Amino acid sequence: MTDALVLFSGGQDSTTCLAFALENFARVETIGFDYGQRHRVELDQRTKILAKIGAIKPGWAARLGKDHGVELGVLGQISATAMTHDVAIAMGADGLPNTFVPGRNLLFLTFAAAIAYRRGLRRIVGGMCETDYSGYPDCRDNTIKAMQLALNLGMDKDFVLDTPLMWLDKAETWKLAEQLGGAALIDLIVEETHTCYLGERGQRQAWGYGCGECPACRLRAAGWRKYRGEPVQA
Amino acid sequence: MTDALVLFSGGQDSTTCLAFALENFARVETIGFDYGQRHRVELDQRTKILAKIGAIKPGWAARLGKDHGVELGVLGQISATAMTHDVAIAMGADGLPNTFVPGRNLLFLTFAAAIAYRRGLRRIVGGMCETDYSGYPDCRDNTIKAMQLALNLGMDKDFVLDTPLMWLDKAETWKLAEQLGGAALIDLIVEETHTCYLGERGQRQAWGYGCGECPACRLRAAGWRKYRGEPVQA
Repeated sequence: MTDALVLFSGGQDSTTCLAFALENFARVETIGFDYGQRHRVELDQRTKILAKIGAIKPGWAARLGKDHGVELGVLGQISATAMTHDVAIAMGADGLPNTFVPGRNLLFLTFAAAIAYRRGLRRIVGGMCETDYSGYPDCRDNTIKAMQLALNLGMDKDFVLDTPLMWLDKAETWKLAEQLGGAALIDLIVEETHTCYLGERGQRQAWGYGCGECPACRLRAAGWRKYRGEPVQA
Repeated sequence: MTDALVLFSGGQDSTTCLAFALENFARVETIGFDYGQRHRVELDQRTKILAKIGAIKPGWAARLGKDHGVELGVLGQISATAMTHDVAIAMGADGLPNTFVPGRNLLFLTFAAAIAYRRGLRRIVGGMCETDYSGYPDCRDNTIKAMQLALNLGMDKDFVLDTPLMWLDKAETWKLAEQLGGAALIDLIVEETHTCYLGERGQRQAWGYGCGECPACRLRAAGWRKYRGEPVQA
């Protein structure tokens, strides 16, 4: 068993990745990025999840190590809203908010690798996924593998970028969480993880909290229904 | 001719790269990173160079476009001094200051690509060089080429990372500057570019300003003497 750094945002996917790492690696540290208002809820939720996840399964608490918070407000300078005058924050026709930063995951991975270098961690675990997010080129498997090469050449290391969700759909991600941490982990994910693009918590639904209308909420709800064997609306 | 974004720090290498871009591309924008006290002098000098370089050669002023400043104080969180307690800023035995951030150029290139994406620029020009800096794995040609692949896959673009200094030594870099902008550019580089690791300007030498003792100053001075056909001390 080796040591790992998990890109942990406080969402469903990265919480499942954190459980995956706690199950498979000897020492697990986490990294999170603070880059703007929309994600304030995520940041609050990630703190709660870190405080609770160690109790889900014997052994996990002892493996969970330091959490690294990286302040990246500078990303706002690169968003469409910042580069173009008089544009309000809104959802684009492509389903991406116009605060989207091209190649954002490449930045996150590079910061993560720099921290992993300093902390002596070899595995870097991220929730990138082609199945549901093929619209984001920085989540694709080819991108991640090219990035592993660039990071290892550029830092003279042998990091492994682990993406356990790459080929899973949202229903299979719920299933993986169940396999890793049973009903207790499912409950934690439903109760505490945040997915909603609009940063809303709202009323609790079976699949968790959120506006229920944005692309991220709809994807999460549909994945939950498929996982539970319930009818999934078109 | 296409459009370019130059990684421009205000040093000898990146000023030569800026001249290279002004000579070869139709529209040239610049990007600089503000990440701590040591580089304050560089940031002051880069402003002066941007104000003067357009006048070096007919056509250059019209090509020189927007300058993008990116605040990256967060890099301090990843340096050895931040990750280790009670360590003062100092030069390491490897010739690198212990404020060194692993893979720093990968971060710079990723931010540059995100800006280039937003600004519609295709070429990204950087002063990375294997010849004098083989100690930095993030300056190597293999790293840059892997990074071009990762950036293009991750942003669904066709950026070209141009590194005109990759195979030049410091004497050849002076020669390239002379070819691009003649004596006027050499004068600008001697007078205004900053190389010294310690951030000192000191007395003007033939090769410019600096402490004269740190690895960066010695490399610059030796390159100057070789370029001028003067004896180079061991």
